[in-house]
Amino acid sequence: MNRKLIIASGLLAPTVAMAGNKPNIIFFLVDDYGWADSEVAYDGVTYPNNLRFHTPNMVRLAEKGVTISHAYACPVSTPTRTSIMTGMSPVHSHITNWTSMAKDEPSDAVGGANGAAVYGEKDDDVFRRPDWNFNGISPVDGINDTQYATPMVQLLRDNGYYTIHVGKAHWASSGTPGSTPYNMGFLVNVSGTNAGLPKSYLGTENFGNTQEKWNMSAVQDMTQYYGQEIFLTEALTREALRTLEYPVEKGEPFYLYMAHYATHTPIQKDSRFFGRYKDMGQDNGQSKYASMVEGVDKSLGDILDFLDEKGIADNTIIIFMADNGGNADVKSKGGILHTQNAPLREGKGSVYQGGIRVPMSVYWPGKAKAGSRLDIPTVPEDLFPTILDMAGIKKYETVQEVDGESLVPYITGKAKPEAVQKMMERPVVFHYPHQWKVVYKPEVDFLSTIIVGDWKLVYVMMNAVEGQSVDPGRGLVESTAAMSDIPGVRSGALELYNLKEDIGELHNVAGKYPEKVKELAKELSDILRQWDASMPVVRKTALPVTLPDGLL
Amino acid sequence: MNRKLIIASGLLAPTVAMAGNKPNIIFFLVDDYGWADSEVAYDGVTYPNNLRFHTPNMVRLAEKGVTISHAYACPVSTPTRTSIMTGMSPVHSHITNWTSMAKDEPSDAVGGANGAAVYGEKDDDVFRRPDWNFNGISPVDGINDTQYATPMVQLLRDNGYYTIHVGKAHWASSGTPGSTPYNMGFLVNVSGTNAGLPKSYLGTENFGNTQEKWNMSAVQDMTQYYGQEIFLTEALTREALRTLEYPVEKGEPFYLYMAHYATHTPIQKDSRFFGRYKDMGQDNGQSKYASMVEGVDKSLGDILDFLDEKGIADNTIIIFMADNGGNADVKSKGGILHTQNAPLREGKGSVYQGGIRVPMSVYWPGKAKAGSRLDIPTVPEDLFPTILDMAGIKKYETVQEVDGESLVPYITGKAKPEAVQKMMERPVVFHYPHQWKVVYKPEVDFLSTIIVGDWKLVYVMMNAVEGQSVDPGRGLVESTAAMSDIPGVRSGALELYNLKEDIGELHNVAGKYPEKVKELAKELSDILRQWDASMPVVRKTALPVTLPDGLL
Repeated sequence: MNRKLIIASGLLAPTVAMAGNKPNIIFFLVDDYGWADSEVAYDGVTYPNNLRFHTPNMVRLAEKGVTISHAYACPVSTPTRTSIMTGMSPVHSHITNWTSMAKDEPSDAVGGANGAAVYGEKDDDVFRRPDWNFNGISPVDGINDTQYATPMVQLLRDNGYYTIHVGKAHWASSGTPGSTPYNMGFLVNVSGTNAGLPKSYLGTENFGNTQEKWNMSAVQDMTQYYGQEIFLTEALTREALRTLEYPVEKGEPFYLYMAHYATHTPIQKDSRFFGRYKDMGQDNGQSKYASMVEGVDKSLGDILDFLDEKGIADNTIIIFMADNGGNADVKSKGGILHTQNAPLREGKGSVYQGGIRVPMSVYWPGKAKAGSRLDIPTVPEDLFPTILDMAGIKKYETVQEVDGESLVPYITGKAKPEAVQKMMERPVVFHYPHQWKVVYKPEVDFLSTIIVGDWKLVYVMMNAVEGQSVDPGRGLVESTAAMSDIPGVRSGALELYNLKEDIGELHNVAGKYPEKVKELAKELSDILRQWDASMPVVRKTALPVTLPDGLL
Repeated sequence: MNRKLIIASGLLAPTVAMAGNKPNIIFFLVDDYGWADSEVAYDGVTYPNNLRFHTPNMVRLAEKGVTISHAYACPVSTPTRTSIMTGMSPVHSHITNWTSMAKDEPSDAVGGANGAAVYGEKDDDVFRRPDWNFNGISPVDGINDTQYATPMVQLLRDNGYYTIHVGKAHWASSGTPGSTPYNMGFLVNVSGTNAGLPKSYLGTENFGNTQEKWNMSAVQDMTQYYGQEIFLTEALTREALRTLEYPVEKGEPFYLYMAHYATHTPIQKDSRFFGRYKDMGQDNGQSKYASMVEGVDKSLGDILDFLDEKGIADNTIIIFMADNGGNADVKSKGGILHTQNAPLREGKGSVYQGGIRVPMSVYWPGKAKAGSRLDIPTVPEDLFPTILDMAGIKKYETVQEVDGESLVPYITGKAKPEAVQKMMERPVVFHYPHQWKVVYKPEVDFLSTIIVGDWKLVYVMMNAVEGQSVDPGRGLVESTAAMSDIPGVRSGALELYNLKEDIGELHNVAGKYPEKVKELAKELSDILRQWDASMPVVRKTALPVTLPDGLL
């Protein structure tokens, strides 16, 4: 009896337990990819933007699975990626911005890594940067300015999954354990590093591995493609399919984290698809961007085809998602700045919908109803318990407290109506206490938000500081601050939107619903307080900026 | 019956067949590492050089296994590595020099890759470079200037081995399939690329991944150690042990190719060990080099300890070897140039013994007698059939013709005395029809050799050209050409040494044994002719330089 128990919990137990019954899982993550940038109508409505892209495989996936209409991600990359890996809200992990390539260089503003002054160093800055975990997550305790956590992938691996990383990692700065997928539970890593973007997508430019181009974002593990006419998205896809051969042959369940660098900057032409968009009359920048999107779409299609060919499609889950909204502040992408995510307002970096509402589909044959739609709001930290749940891993220990909820009951339609209703009303918080780029932008920097059902409160931290009066209205929005005055609340600090009636957040109705403003400000404050959220420090007072309920 | 046959030859067959009965194999390859640069007396004699190093783990390995007293490797790195991978003699594969980092840049002289003119481009050069496979090997047909071959590791993987690459690959130039271990049959690759050296061994220099240092030899896959006080040898060892966890847990046989960059240039201080050598009164350069050697020794010890801890030492073979002789032409290594491999003559690049005689030990518990010595000459291409033989892989198909012989009968002592005697007299050929560095060096460039038993012929191709008269005597040797005249043979073109009596090749006895010279010249020519060897082209005549028997 004793001996049996030892065997059951021993080295070979996962191997035995898993055989044949665990599903394969592919997490297909796209970078800086806008909610309306495909032919898929995630909320059932086709917007003009959707017509600018050709994405037959995203449609194919959506038709096979469930689309999540209200999937959210953090305004920038690292917090989403670390939330997926840890199950923690970024407010909780204090990883609220992207990690710099080098250790101990907070990325606030463009950060030391790129040579610019860290925000808060200049005398005329209003804020000093908040205290946050700028080195990212760490699977090892005791690394300064990191969140120590048990990686989700380590748990998959401990439970018999063959774990493969292909593409962008970006959980942590170099010089820390979390910068390599090998320390996160991955058995194989192709090109995942500390970098958050690829120096170049072009094989002809060695993906940035040239004396002229190089910096730490030059893509690793791709020497065989140097000098060749190949786009990084295609090269990574080929590598992913190659790495899958082993677990498929062995019949081991696999977890493939296919994390494309695309469609992050640099916006470069994927020449296989560029012509289509030029022919449609789109400008150069948009044609480039759309060609990158179609490259990602082809990658997805190639993976779907591979699963069919290998006869494993029926036992493979695919989660398709973007890590944050499309970039609406980059000229090389074409179009009009700040409007490229229409109908959504703003883009990457911002807590307005363009920065946080992301495309998401889940294909789960036999479990998720083909062609169905799920309307509950989801957050990145849900993926941690969701994926473990999908893998049938019920018991596990983590050094961190997991905040996310498994989406499995909702994806499979097994949840009771009351549970669904509760999820529909769950509070969703995104908190960005940073300055994103060198020049301060009210519509992006130092914003916090809470969404509950159709209501969304935006906290403009800058306007909580005495003497400051900024107007985040820009792009599609003509003016917002002026419409928002609530008696007794500092002008412009709290904005209120009804997302159901106003998907583009064009109409700040705070002045019309002061009680809703107060209710949400209280709820947001409680969440920020609960996790001791990182808050920018007001230079003049040397105190953190107030929580939103301090304004009431 | 039919169905059973299908299953037996189907996908899962290797998995089933291998369980529990295949040995693990670790190939521990050291770079540019001299034959006398350890405490191990590979031929039973302790030379002064051996006393300059502290290598307890190499001793430990030698005591556990069999030392190969006459192990040979090619004068430079790539040919040895490609011979191991293909089983082909470099004369046959036409990969006789190292591969440049970039495609289509022959490395002759220092080659285009480093900005110098390719040898043979200047009007005053005697030779044009030979036609050779300067892009290395390729597992895919149709890549220009490569040898198409079935990689040995692919065969291991096809037969159920879990295959891991850690360290230096250097089989092929970037932009070709052979530049990545992933295309060679490896399931996991840590840092193997097209590069033949590490830009830096220092974590504090990001292993070369800095704007100031970077070139294509900056080491990949090591972000987690950037900025840290760690030497590359140690970092790679830790990665190797981490990657071994999976196959050990699964009980899968593994092949670990632990190919250290050390002790290749740059010669840098491994500060853990440097002090010992300074304290011994050694110069700075030698102390640095010895510290790098001891770092490699510690790596070996860590691996041996790991095998013990995991209880798998009894089923794990370790092959320890260097890829070519120690570098005797680099000032940073200290000592007196051209003498650092004493008692052997010359070093890396040269076919004199210092360039080709390498340390080798094989640990094979239960099969190779502990503390024994094997005196047959071995060549790198032997490793291909040897390793497959060790793995019990009897039947396999290759697109290339394999030239090496399995050493298993000799290592295990199972070979009959006649077979041993035949191996003792096998011809060993090394052929270097290139100029190694920018400045022509007679003792290194354009040399070919054949060793049969105690006799060694060296063909100085330069002296086969009318009007040329160079003297390769240098370093330990005062003069050789003058002693070698054979009636009717061009002065200085053919040298003869008796290795048993003259380990240092100090005495060219060609004039004394003209018949032996002719016999060996004929045998060398036959081998070169058989494989249509790459020969330098004489600029004046536009014809390849004659084979040695053309001089007789």
